[in-house]
Amino acid sequence: MEKKIPKNTVKRLSVYLRCLNKLQEDGIENVSSSEFGELIGINPAQIRKDLSYFGEFVRQGLGDNIEKLKNGIKKIIGLNETQNIILIGVGNLGKAILNYNVITKRGFSIIAAFDKDPEMIGKIINNVGVFDIKKIDQFIAGKNIKCAILTLPPDQIRKTIEKLYQLGIKGFLNFAPISLNLSKDIQIVNVDLSSSLEVLMFYLRNNSE
Amino acid sequence: MEKKIPKNTVKRLSVYLRCLNKLQEDGIENVSSSEFGELIGINPAQIRKDLSYFGEFVRQGLGDNIEKLKNGIKKIIGLNETQNIILIGVGNLGKAILNYNVITKRGFSIIAAFDKDPEMIGKIINNVGVFDIKKIDQFIAGKNIKCAILTLPPDQIRKTIEKLYQLGIKGFLNFAPISLNLSKDIQIVNVDLSSSLEVLMFYLRNNSE
Repeated sequence: MEKKIPKNTVKRLSVYLRCLNKLQEDGIENVSSSEFGELIGINPAQIRKDLSYFGEFVRQGLGDNIEKLKNGIKKIIGLNETQNIILIGVGNLGKAILNYNVITKRGFSIIAAFDKDPEMIGKIINNVGVFDIKKIDQFIAGKNIKCAILTLPPDQIRKTIEKLYQLGIKGFLNFAPISLNLSKDIQIVNVDLSSSLEVLMFYLRNNSE
Repeated sequence: MEKKIPKNTVKRLSVYLRCLNKLQEDGIENVSSSEFGELIGINPAQIRKDLSYFGEFVRQGLGDNIEKLKNGIKKIIGLNETQNIILIGVGNLGKAILNYNVITKRGFSIIAAFDKDPEMIGKIINNVGVFDIKKIDQFIAGKNIKCAILTLPPDQIRKTIEKLYQLGIKGFLNFAPISLNLSKDIQIVNVDLSSSLEVLMFYLRNNSE
């Protein structure tokens, strides 16, 4: 990959993929960027620009084959094969995510969850087993796991990332409200609900003024 | 507000607010943009630029008073008074959010939750009562509620937004994997876990190539 892709482009690609899936479920085979833009409320020129980062698989005006577009986007994102992931911390949020089947539909497989609570260890939630966090080294060995979902209290995030990094995991989806200055080799995506609410408040306020 | 503020600036302001809170908890009273940038891993020039959208309350080089910075950001976001919000849909994710005390700490108050399940109605989760969704009209009347958290299945999102919009609620934090083309008057912030995972996969893939 030569050009640096803006983060918002990557996010939109993910939206495109979701909407293309939906169209395909509805039995539609081809879509033009203008129809597609109308449908999802994004400027067609923006859509063409986003897709142009990745070569020539979009043509202005003519309808594009949805299957081809989908496969192009999946290949870019790295979802042309199922990605095995693990989840650490089986509290309310961890349970909610284990029960959130959309993740599986979108090409991810949560193959195990880990917790330190003896009450949780051994349980099976939506077909995912909960294991003792102390045994994570053994579990991970030899499996191709690239990322972990962290649903842990803030004070446990840093040491967990350091531990998992030593085991070869370099990608983290983090839900704790914490800012970490980590090695450039580690990729972390933060989901911060308070921050999302703050962004929402800002737009509400400025829309009404 | 005259200038259009980029979405990423708003998100970073929210990060700044969180980190300034943390510094203040640690007993620190003043911080310069370079110290602050070092601490949170964001370029100090970027920080000054973000804050400059809102007037003159940041000075290069000199340390800025944290309390003043915090109040400035809070005022911009609309958090200088507590914001009452409601939550619709008390499944696993809804419960996790009700139990997520960070939201309260950050100036939001979830004053009620709503569900249609008779088993849930009447329960109290982390001091928040769960009410019958059918009685939401009565509940909302006269209360200053500007936004709602929607933790509902995708097929219930549109009609719920339309209903709440009629009741005067114009801001929504949505967790369902769905793209809606709504009235410009409605502000919606989508939190999409699969999308976050896809963004993460993309970065992992391009980092290792």
